Amino acid sequence: MNLLLLLPEDLAAPDRAILSGRRLAHVREVHRAQVGDELAVGLLGGAMGRGRVLRLDAGALELALVLDEAPPPKLPLSLVIALPRPKVLNRVVAAAASLGAGRIVLLNAWKVEKAYWSSPRLQPDSLRQQLLLGLEQARDTVLPELRLARLFRPFVEDELPELLAGGTGLLAHPGPGETVPEVLAAPLTLAIGPEGGWIEAEVRSLIKAGLRPLSLGPRILRTETALAALVGKFF
Amino acid sequence: MNLLLLLPEDLAAPDRAILSGRRLAHVREVHRAQVGDELAVGLLGGAMGRGRVLRLDAGALELALVLDEAPPPKLPLSLVIALPRPKVLNRVVAAAASLGAGRIVLLNAWKVEKAYWSSPRLQPDSLRQQLLLGLEQARDTVLPELRLARLFRPFVEDELPELLAGGTGLLAHPGPGETVPEVLAAPLTLAIGPEGGWIEAEVRSLIKAGLRPLSLGPRILRTETALAALVGKFF
Repeated sequence: MNLLLLLPEDLAAPDRAILSGRRLAHVREVHRAQVGDELAVGLLGGAMGRGRVLRLDAGALELALVLDEAPPPKLPLSLVIALPRPKVLNRVVAAAASLGAGRIVLLNAWKVEKAYWSSPRLQPDSLRQQLLLGLEQARDTVLPELRLARLFRPFVEDELPELLAGGTGLLAHPGPGETVPEVLAAPLTLAIGPEGGWIEAEVRSLIKAGLRPLSLGPRILRTETALAALVGKFF
Repeated sequence: MNLLLLLPEDLAAPDRAILSGRRLAHVREVHRAQVGDELAVGLLGGAMGRGRVLRLDAGALELALVLDEAPPPKLPLSLVIALPRPKVLNRVVAAAASLGAGRIVLLNAWKVEKAYWSSPRLQPDSLRQQLLLGLEQARDTVLPELRLARLFRPFVEDELPELLAGGTGLLAHPGPGETVPEVLAAPLTLAIGPEGGWIEAEVRSLIKAGLRPLSLGPRILRTETALAALVGKFF
């Protein structure tokens, strides 16, 4: 946790926050902060700055706030990610948020097992928690937009072309294909397939919707590794 | 597992392998292969190709091999990574191997807790297992060189300058700093700090050894996210 993220309900006054629960435990056990210390803080959806510890015990953490910095700008980037296995979903969502993507779409695909869509990790509270962890990691306060697209075809045919309008869309896949274009119009949309890849019909639909195939080279990367490598390549 | 990695001792003949254990279980339970199916296989340190299933039951997997493809070339890349927490070490090592780094150095730093160096995950067998998982993920057969540098100063003063000779070395850190140089001489050495960052004296030593500071932007990324983003940026 590189930023203590404050929620509106934590504010006892505009310059005073009182926390308990996970964040209190983290500040006590990991930061091992003392009264008088300053912590990096940010208000969810708002400014960042410093919080001076006024009180820290088993019951609460109380902070005097100076919030005078803007959060880092979001990247003009939409990630369209085939829904990963529940076991890796949390890491993928937190990584996407930490990298600064403005929008994350979790999309169905032929090789996404149906059971993945019933995972408790897809509950809004669970997803939001991972987004918050990503923001705390990266020192950001602004949640990306996150949506679930449980039906491939309506999303790809009706919504994806709008998402791509005026920008660039790339379909990442291992193996031969187009290499990285030199000049890209922002905003950028990157689509990352499931383990096992997109099937042919999906690739055709995605290309028809406006994505250009992009080779990631001969290596097959895990979803979270591929998405970080792609963000590194373009931003 | 996108490649079934064969060890020399699996070979009953140059074109015949017999496997048991983890890989047998994976082929039965995840691939759900049948007799007659072809699997992507590779010989550790050698060629890749296909293995036709001759026998598959609770006792063994027997494959007829055709090994006629070269593994993907290693990247001219050395990663110098401050030893991560044991909890994330496995993921970092596997990710570094999957990305194709030729050399991985796990380095001590002021903010690396001493206890990390006694983790069972640093045992050679455990590290090798993570490297193999990374190769299986990426479809590669060639292990990167992996070494542990438990002493910061001798490594940085005596070995790092040699590693950098004729190539480019970059010191990644969050915040302002040099942006990405347009032209880089290969081989590339990338140094990635611990959670909490390098301390000032370490930065000075690393720069003195020949690394140039490189800004990764305002966001603080987890080690495995940062290293994938860096590899994506330069390769």
